[in-house]
Amino acid sequence: FGIYYSPEALLNVGEGEKPNEPAAKQPPQTAAGSCGCNKSCTCTKGTDVGFSDLYSTGKQRKNYLLPALDGDTKTMTFLQEVVDILMAYIVESFDRETKVIDFHYPNELLQLNNWELQDEPATLDDILISCRATLKYAIKTAHPRYFNQLSTGLDMVGLAADWLTSTANTNMFTYEVAPVFVLLEYVTLKKMREIIGWSDGRGDGIFSPGGAISNMYAMLLARFKMFPEVKEKGMSSVPKLVAFTSEHVRTQTDALFLQSLNQMSDFPAQFSSSPQLSYKGFVPFFVSATAGTTVYGAFDPLIAISDICKKYNVWFHVDGAWGGSLLMSRRHRWKLDGVERANSVTWNPHKMMSVPLQCSALLVREEGLMQSCNQMHACYLFQQDKHYDLSYDTGDKALQCGRHVDIFKLWLMWRAKGTIGFEAQIDKCLELSEYLYNKIKDREGYQMVFDGKPQHTNVCFWYLPPGIRYMEDKEEKKKRLHKVAPVIKARMMEYGTTMVSYQPQGDKVNFFRMVISNPAATFEDIDFLIEEIERLGHDL
Amino acid sequence: FGIYYSPEALLNVGEGEKPNEPAAKQPPQTAAGSCGCNKSCTCTKGTDVGFSDLYSTGKQRKNYLLPALDGDTKTMTFLQEVVDILMAYIVESFDRETKVIDFHYPNELLQLNNWELQDEPATLDDILISCRATLKYAIKTAHPRYFNQLSTGLDMVGLAADWLTSTANTNMFTYEVAPVFVLLEYVTLKKMREIIGWSDGRGDGIFSPGGAISNMYAMLLARFKMFPEVKEKGMSSVPKLVAFTSEHVRTQTDALFLQSLNQMSDFPAQFSSSPQLSYKGFVPFFVSATAGTTVYGAFDPLIAISDICKKYNVWFHVDGAWGGSLLMSRRHRWKLDGVERANSVTWNPHKMMSVPLQCSALLVREEGLMQSCNQMHACYLFQQDKHYDLSYDTGDKALQCGRHVDIFKLWLMWRAKGTIGFEAQIDKCLELSEYLYNKIKDREGYQMVFDGKPQHTNVCFWYLPPGIRYMEDKEEKKKRLHKVAPVIKARMMEYGTTMVSYQPQGDKVNFFRMVISNPAATFEDIDFLIEEIERLGHDL
Repeated sequence: FGIYYSPEALLNVGEGEKPNEPAAKQPPQTAAGSCGCNKSCTCTKGTDVGFSDLYSTGKQRKNYLLPALDGDTKTMTFLQEVVDILMAYIVESFDRETKVIDFHYPNELLQLNNWELQDEPATLDDILISCRATLKYAIKTAHPRYFNQLSTGLDMVGLAADWLTSTANTNMFTYEVAPVFVLLEYVTLKKMREIIGWSDGRGDGIFSPGGAISNMYAMLLARFKMFPEVKEKGMSSVPKLVAFTSEHVRTQTDALFLQSLNQMSDFPAQFSSSPQLSYKGFVPFFVSATAGTTVYGAFDPLIAISDICKKYNVWFHVDGAWGGSLLMSRRHRWKLDGVERANSVTWNPHKMMSVPLQCSALLVREEGLMQSCNQMHACYLFQQDKHYDLSYDTGDKALQCGRHVDIFKLWLMWRAKGTIGFEAQIDKCLELSEYLYNKIKDREGYQMVFDGKPQHTNVCFWYLPPGIRYMEDKEEKKKRLHKVAPVIKARMMEYGTTMVSYQPQGDKVNFFRMVISNPAATFEDIDFLIEEIERLGHDL
Repeated sequence: FGIYYSPEALLNVGEGEKPNEPAAKQPPQTAAGSCGCNKSCTCTKGTDVGFSDLYSTGKQRKNYLLPALDGDTKTMTFLQEVVDILMAYIVESFDRETKVIDFHYPNELLQLNNWELQDEPATLDDILISCRATLKYAIKTAHPRYFNQLSTGLDMVGLAADWLTSTANTNMFTYEVAPVFVLLEYVTLKKMREIIGWSDGRGDGIFSPGGAISNMYAMLLARFKMFPEVKEKGMSSVPKLVAFTSEHVRTQTDALFLQSLNQMSDFPAQFSSSPQLSYKGFVPFFVSATAGTTVYGAFDPLIAISDICKKYNVWFHVDGAWGGSLLMSRRHRWKLDGVERANSVTWNPHKMMSVPLQCSALLVREEGLMQSCNQMHACYLFQQDKHYDLSYDTGDKALQCGRHVDIFKLWLMWRAKGTIGFEAQIDKCLELSEYLYNKIKDREGYQMVFDGKPQHTNVCFWYLPPGIRYMEDKEEKKKRLHKVAPVIKARMMEYGTTMVSYQPQGDKVNFFRMVISNPAATFEDIDFLIEEIERLGHDL
């Protein structure tokens, strides 16, 4: 720890001057007071309301908050104080005059506040100060110019729902401890299966802690379906297995052998169908087609892949963690044509639908399989002599015992927007990305990473500063171009004006990957991004 | 769906009358108004403040909440309305006059509100009504008489921290998108490792979505440590593996062969050490000792088990999901003596430390192993040319790509209580369970399930109603006793007065398992539980 690289250390690529200061759009340096309010202040707010000698709990000290007797009033005052801090932060997050981030290097940030844990309790005043400090140095993921990840934005109804979820503080394993949430999971999963196109919304499913876990659960189901003995006898009872997935898949999700799906013509030939279906001595058990790859936003041809899976009787999974939400859009859902043929689908509403993190669904076509695959009959949870319908005790459908309540925020947002509201939001983000694509595809100094209109909101491009643009030495040009995006990104974070991701891919040097999932973004924000890239990068 | 059993259907065990109505302690039937406030009212509050024609978002309708222009005021009013509902619910949850649950069977609950998802958006007024309805039928997990699960209670600072976490709405994969939370995870995991007893708190770790996932991650590490080729070549490259764990372990966490650790004398003999360490043709790679089993709260003898693991060079994991928190108590931590010898430890602060769900830590002794085992170098997240210290990009330490921010609530609670505050809280819960044990161990009509004082807060016992107590026919007695706990539990839920878990175990018929993890509980609540069991069960 303690070793880091300043942007200056990377700035040896260009010979030009330091970038110009921006004219009008630089955010005021005092935008975020450390109290979380919109003014530059010295943060005595907490002290004012008299929390400096109050404690939440502690051995030798009196407790002032619930469950302390007569703790009601102080608790409500304390929580209200926290809510005021949060509200100020929310309003600020949507304000374009505010920085996306007040960036500090890790060792600086460690010094900026006392983050250490102590034996002795801190006062409630100190707790409020910690809340303010935490938000002061946080990324404003709701900011209309934060484009850094697939999950951006902050939906007000989703947020309210997540606050309620925290307050209800329960677990999804049984109807007994989460009656409403279990019902809402049932209702919502059914609706999602209808949208996939499974007849009457029949099938099964679960919300899991994220796309990687959802995909892993799908693999477990596929393996169990083909070799049910694996549950009792373990991996040594099954042959050597192989899974297939797209070459551009986001991350490998198991230690299994992975192959490219991209050469669709080669794909069937890779299977030998007799005497036992095999590929290089392995048995194919799982094909994961990607609907929306992480970097390019590309969609695999689901119908063609499903034909092969059907022919060879291999489990067909669609990883729609990123692209699944396009099913909500009448204009864009054709990109997932064939998804209804899948045995299982991963779909993360916490990405393109802006549901607060975490919210990932695994939808499964066959009813009852999840239970058979995963149930352990833990007698302390799933008593068979309970007095209500046990089909609502869903906790035995997954490896996890307890599950966090991820359903309520999606359900309440869906209720607030309606299906057409989600559709409008998704269509808008895709329009914005088309606008960006049209803006830069023939613009001087830009080069697209792949040909044609993007299928999702991913727009991948290089920005070539004038000093590199006309270079003749191809190797040298590539080498210098590789360093451009990291420096521009570092400068964006220093200024805090916007954030966008970059990466290399295969033999391609560092390029920007724009993604748009925040409904707060506008055409002007896209214009701003391009201006900012040029402002921060023209000297490189 | 639609098939369920009413408590009446189970009531054919006893010949006596229906249980008496309780004298003073029955909660008033009108305690919870549907608006979430403490009065019996008709829920027009939402309409009063004028949300009946306001929408959050929608295609043909104007948007009134952020990110709408000038949406600030309406957003703050709306969120404040939600917070008022939550505050009323919180205050009510700690009130012993309030029901723990307003129980309805699944098909009844489906009828009690319109839970369906629509194409069209709902008004904000409808959203507020949905929030109130959701809380009306929720379990009050903070209630001082809710003893149903290992995770109970609601800490006010933890709740405030969770609200802040939702508002910050970010992901743990990189320092870039979660600078403060990544630092706090670093600080907190180090502190936890110090408490385990690892020199200078060195080692590694991660917060995962729960104990099952933490334990699975530990298994992946153990397998990789012994057979690093598994990462590239898959399971077919390694021999047949076997894991060992306690007989009374909560749930099986992998499809691997499980063996009992209880017969410690047999344990070493089960290994043959030459030519290759093996057990019935399997290679032992993982021993998971349990510190606090789910039902009995029993602790495996860690020192003795660690000696064997050391001798045979097998990974030694301690599953302290439930019991790990006793490390915070100077009075009780001896129960985990030897934990410092572990290669990995699971420790869930969301159970005994009352941190809001979810909060589970996996702590690992060897530095760097998590990264080697799991990293995929996703180039779109973990760029090697970033401008800050990359050791803070923790997302490559686990199978998951994104991780929910589970650290802030633990960190802020620790700050508010200090280590001594957690210690006091844990010691108090253990005192309460000792009080319960002493109260019932010789009381007429009670029988303990296992001998001796409980090691954790788990107290397992049978209540024998007078009609069963003196029966001579042992088989018939057992048969009838088996039906007692389910009926009492069903009645508890009908009355909503308290909740406690029951289950059978091995050849033991249904017994109550009391656990205490809610610092709001008092000696009087324990007395109430016993009175309530007798009131609801004496006729059986």
